[in-house]
Amino acid sequence: MNNFEFCNPVKVVFGKGSIARLSALLPEGSKVLVVYGGGSIKKNGIYEQVTAALKDFHTYEFGGIEANPRYETCMKAVELVKGENIDFLLAVGGGSVIDATKFIASATFFEGDPWDILSKGGVIKKALPLGVVLTLAATGSEMNERAVISRESVHEKLNFMSPLVFPKFAILDPQVTYSLPERQVANGVVDSFIHVVEQYLTYPVNAKVQDYFAEGLMKTIVEEGRKVLQNPNDYDIRANLMWAATNALNCWIGQGVPQDWSSHRMGYALTAQFGLDHAQTLAVILPGVMTYMRKEKAAKLIRMGEVIFGITEGSADEKAQKSIEATEDFFHFMGLKTRLSDYGIKESDLDALVEPIDRMGWKLGEYGNINSKVAKEILLLRL
Amino acid sequence: MNNFEFCNPVKVVFGKGSIARLSALLPEGSKVLVVYGGGSIKKNGIYEQVTAALKDFHTYEFGGIEANPRYETCMKAVELVKGENIDFLLAVGGGSVIDATKFIASATFFEGDPWDILSKGGVIKKALPLGVVLTLAATGSEMNERAVISRESVHEKLNFMSPLVFPKFAILDPQVTYSLPERQVANGVVDSFIHVVEQYLTYPVNAKVQDYFAEGLMKTIVEEGRKVLQNPNDYDIRANLMWAATNALNCWIGQGVPQDWSSHRMGYALTAQFGLDHAQTLAVILPGVMTYMRKEKAAKLIRMGEVIFGITEGSADEKAQKSIEATEDFFHFMGLKTRLSDYGIKESDLDALVEPIDRMGWKLGEYGNINSKVAKEILLLRL
Repeated sequence: MNNFEFCNPVKVVFGKGSIARLSALLPEGSKVLVVYGGGSIKKNGIYEQVTAALKDFHTYEFGGIEANPRYETCMKAVELVKGENIDFLLAVGGGSVIDATKFIASATFFEGDPWDILSKGGVIKKALPLGVVLTLAATGSEMNERAVISRESVHEKLNFMSPLVFPKFAILDPQVTYSLPERQVANGVVDSFIHVVEQYLTYPVNAKVQDYFAEGLMKTIVEEGRKVLQNPNDYDIRANLMWAATNALNCWIGQGVPQDWSSHRMGYALTAQFGLDHAQTLAVILPGVMTYMRKEKAAKLIRMGEVIFGITEGSADEKAQKSIEATEDFFHFMGLKTRLSDYGIKESDLDALVEPIDRMGWKLGEYGNINSKVAKEILLLRL
Repeated sequence: MNNFEFCNPVKVVFGKGSIARLSALLPEGSKVLVVYGGGSIKKNGIYEQVTAALKDFHTYEFGGIEANPRYETCMKAVELVKGENIDFLLAVGGGSVIDATKFIASATFFEGDPWDILSKGGVIKKALPLGVVLTLAATGSEMNERAVISRESVHEKLNFMSPLVFPKFAILDPQVTYSLPERQVANGVVDSFIHVVEQYLTYPVNAKVQDYFAEGLMKTIVEEGRKVLQNPNDYDIRANLMWAATNALNCWIGQGVPQDWSSHRMGYALTAQFGLDHAQTLAVILPGVMTYMRKEKAAKLIRMGEVIFGITEGSADEKAQKSIEATEDFFHFMGLKTRLSDYGIKESDLDALVEPIDRMGWKLGEYGNINSKVAKEILLLRL
């Protein structure tokens, strides 16, 4: 096991009816900005629950956060926050809304150009406190200190981290996910599965707790993911998927083990340049990373195949191959495509897709050996 | 899955050489009281490491915390804390030292008789901040808000909880456990295993993440526990056991599921009246609880037998029985005795052992159906 330092101070409020706890979680007398997305919360009853819980607070609203939250939109919210002296941000939504809220919280006090937070690793010294009412089981952003933001004008998608953007609380009521569109549910299942893979499928360091926990999350996500689209109103399935998605990226399973994240970083350009959903990018790229790094990841690939997909027959190489195929099959089962050509992306597009890797100085993967040249080879496997 | 609310803000610093991080974790200018036990830290190099890390702080020492920390001893430390205006407590030890430190932190500011914290659920409104340098993988106290204290004069052992006694940080260097006596290591293995059992072996509520996590911890503890006494200086074994023990009682796996804890509560009297080690009491009582509640716990007993001990043959009742036997065998393998008679305790002692249950108004177990009468029947099974 590798050394690590870790703290996750987010208060989780989980279960049926938990939105009603909101008023007790907010600092008394707060001026609260409610941040949300495209307005679905006004159709499915969540907005009413939040509004009822906030009746004793002075509240403002900022809607219209995009599925891949844009820098330009966030900066409009920052203006509102400064103009009205907001002192608490409440994200009501999924990962995009939460990520946007984290960026708004940080940009409000940032000295200099807030884009530097994303493009130059600008250090955040102060941030507004924020809370979350989660509406989608997927990114884990409700319980971590990370965010990803896109900038329309330059076709860029970049991330940042700061302990100052851990939510003060995260309210998780699985019932609010009953009415989600199938595509969002499937994306969430695949996204959370791959979050676990990024922290598990590397080389073994004999970290038993972390490996068993990661396998427990993958089993949960595969077992419940296979059922959820046919049983959208089953509380237990929704609850298990929601709690698994939070644990998939609250950074607990990744402590003391090597991590990959190359599929995520390579996927950003697919979203920024071609508009794919985040999970769609991962479902395309991960099988390529698994295949290209098959030798380096062999031990964990075989173990994952056996524990998650029941693959016990064949030579070591065959088992590794079957593990990759079973993973891709699972994405297909969830309705996600896994080839660049499925989205009309051609070989001639690849240079532009890998260009950010060298420009940002990224050395991707658990060995730091994926530069733009290797990334292109991986993408070639996914045409 | 049941509803839950949860927050664990402890910063964990894990790995080789982590004691050197101590000075950076303490608030600058603190007057620090170092709390420790019988003095083993002065023989195994830990004291030197701590002292070196504290060289820029104004420090005091309070040694002599007992294996089952006594109220009377803690109150002497409280006097020192008040007299010297200590503003930070550093526990250097295992669960007993940490629990004592939590009580000292609470009693310092408690208005009224501090014994009320334990005997009457007196609410803690303010506590000194505390940190931990862990020397023994066992109780999980380094990452929770619980403590157990004994009072010599009345032969009582009682617990309390408060979010104010979460350690600010916990330093976990597995190397410091290399030199522990076998008995302490074995006790720690059994104690942490049973912490998981108390949160797992109840009735199923379809909480997949929690169940898989609990099973991952039990597998880790059994696999590494079976090796540790023969390989005391193996870093990975020590690291896995240490991280498993912390996760066994940082309360993560117990969220949203029913919990038992009857073996723990019944065990307190065995320590208070007969001086058994905490883990010794659990190894005696748990098989009794498993047997008495075999029907109610059947589903989880059978699953535990299969996943942890590889039991797949026989009728449901036979598999449940084998699961209980395998658990008891594991305790024997670790060198712990599992019968009251092994400690010279007779049927005529049982009334006194169960007396605190009614007096304290405890209704034990996940169904709250274990009163003193039922507890006596359970103990009769363990003569």
